[in-house]
Amino acid sequence: MPDELRLAFLGFGNVGRALARLLESKRTSLEANYGMCLRVIGVATGRHGSIIRPEGVNMLQAIETVEEGQPLSSLGTSGPADSLAFLQAVEADALLESIPVNYQTGQPALGCIEAALKRGMHVISANKGPVVHGYQRLTELARQYGVRYLFESAVMDGAPIFSLWREALPAGELKSFRGILNSTTNLILTQMEQGRSYEQALAHAQAIGVAETDPSGDILGWDAAVKVAALVTVLMNMPLTPDRVARRGIDGLSLDHIQAAAHEGKRWKLICSAERTAGHIEARVQPELIDAADPLYTVMGTSSAITFVTDVLPWLTITEGDPGPMTTAYGMLADLVRAAGAL
Amino acid sequence: MPDELRLAFLGFGNVGRALARLLESKRTSLEANYGMCLRVIGVATGRHGSIIRPEGVNMLQAIETVEEGQPLSSLGTSGPADSLAFLQAVEADALLESIPVNYQTGQPALGCIEAALKRGMHVISANKGPVVHGYQRLTELARQYGVRYLFESAVMDGAPIFSLWREALPAGELKSFRGILNSTTNLILTQMEQGRSYEQALAHAQAIGVAETDPSGDILGWDAAVKVAALVTVLMNMPLTPDRVARRGIDGLSLDHIQAAAHEGKRWKLICSAERTAGHIEARVQPELIDAADPLYTVMGTSSAITFVTDVLPWLTITEGDPGPMTTAYGMLADLVRAAGAL
Repeated sequence: MPDELRLAFLGFGNVGRALARLLESKRTSLEANYGMCLRVIGVATGRHGSIIRPEGVNMLQAIETVEEGQPLSSLGTSGPADSLAFLQAVEADALLESIPVNYQTGQPALGCIEAALKRGMHVISANKGPVVHGYQRLTELARQYGVRYLFESAVMDGAPIFSLWREALPAGELKSFRGILNSTTNLILTQMEQGRSYEQALAHAQAIGVAETDPSGDILGWDAAVKVAALVTVLMNMPLTPDRVARRGIDGLSLDHIQAAAHEGKRWKLICSAERTAGHIEARVQPELIDAADPLYTVMGTSSAITFVTDVLPWLTITEGDPGPMTTAYGMLADLVRAAGAL
Repeated sequence: MPDELRLAFLGFGNVGRALARLLESKRTSLEANYGMCLRVIGVATGRHGSIIRPEGVNMLQAIETVEEGQPLSSLGTSGPADSLAFLQAVEADALLESIPVNYQTGQPALGCIEAALKRGMHVISANKGPVVHGYQRLTELARQYGVRYLFESAVMDGAPIFSLWREALPAGELKSFRGILNSTTNLILTQMEQGRSYEQALAHAQAIGVAETDPSGDILGWDAAVKVAALVTVLMNMPLTPDRVARRGIDGLSLDHIQAAAHEGKRWKLICSAERTAGHIEARVQPELIDAADPLYTVMGTSSAITFVTDVLPWLTITEGDPGPMTTAYGMLADLVRAAGAL
């Protein structure tokens, strides 16, 4: 009989619900291949209340309830409305966290992750904010309480980036990286290359749910800078906050720039990069002209990619195509398998 | 005090010697970061005899001796000339195997790996032949003897492919893959695109040590077919031998074909692919026209790449740049860290 793992969801938006669906569809294979038997015992949302049910929440019902705009209390048992109160009340082994976060502070996720770790829960987080504002402290806290703090989905959705370095590239040293890590700007640049205006391209990105109503965090390079800071903090073991990443967004790029580049067989891309030089890190986000020989050249639309330069492999590029909530959800599932020690 | 791991090298060509150098250069960090303390106690070569020295072989001397064309016995202690006799005599915890192999049989590596596993050694192999001819049996044997059989370097040198699936993509299902896995043919096609004839391009590939004197294994797609068979066998868990891979090499491609493709903004590449359809595998190696939107388009020279289509990530591409013996050696080092249980 496999061990049962009691789960709590904090955040039940597109990502949380995609994860709930993925866990249902993988239930049989997780039990057969990893001996993992999952029971969701709590779900906390931002706008639909929360539910705690130690005997197990019917997740298909919970998804339906939230998607119909109903409160979770309509399922019969209601939990605390406040996130921290929910975390104190739920007796889970692992927390699946995907709530909206302020990048400048990492809150409220940072406080919730800390509370969950202190209650002895593994924390699987989809957020990069807590990584840049608390990686070392949260990792140390997890160690003290004998649990894991994992966040594969924080950068490049479910593509294995942090786990690649932790598990697949042992004893290698990361010297520098260069990548395309923001989907909104890459989609806008792709659309502009196809002749749309910036305004049309942005409207399209908003219409398909990639760009937010206020797109400035993406356009000005803030989202990308937070990702650079998270990668440097974890993979280069050098704590770096986003404000220390030199940053220029795509707001200075016109249709003329993009068409002139295309004419020369090149493309403007918002490039995220960092280089370690004698104990010092140079980190930046800026538009760069990419030529057709670069693996980043073919990264179009919402796809993303990163090239690692290491002391043991001259370079290695990971490209992730067509991400979405299900991709982010998969990164969290992979972390859950790791946290369960089932690998 | 970290545990000591006693190592034996079987094969001491470019890859074996690069690995010996890498182990020396990583000695301090392996001990500090992974608690691994390594001692090489035996080296067996094809043409320079062997040495067994339980108190430790001076590896810089061993490298120098072989590179000067001297027999290892000139270092003072000589071991058995026969590989199997060497494996019976050496009391190692792990074998680092990189000997020349017949792809059609996997021998003599297959027999050596089996012998080493049965003596309770972990086996780290750089060869794909034993994978396609003995993966399930060797893996089961390793399990019986409480050791590991690992072969990250068998496909795409040191790029993490097998470990990616084993450790970084848990609970995912591989539906299909498509890649460029043979360096010689990709280098020849790259050179022909730059205007060289097939003969000039081949001569260049031979001059820089990428192509063999008899290049037919590469040109006719055999090397690529063995790699496809290895990937299907391990990653799709469906044993497949290379003769069941539909195969066409690059011998039918002329300079005209390549220039005509370039004129349309496309490239001919030798594409390795496999797709799982209802319990059945379609596997092939053939030249295909690749357009500029494909991540395989920018893979030039000796670089290689593979795109995975999975049930959890729409697609993920791994591209490895500028491989060489050091890259292959790194894949073996990564496997050694795994075998030591140090991850």
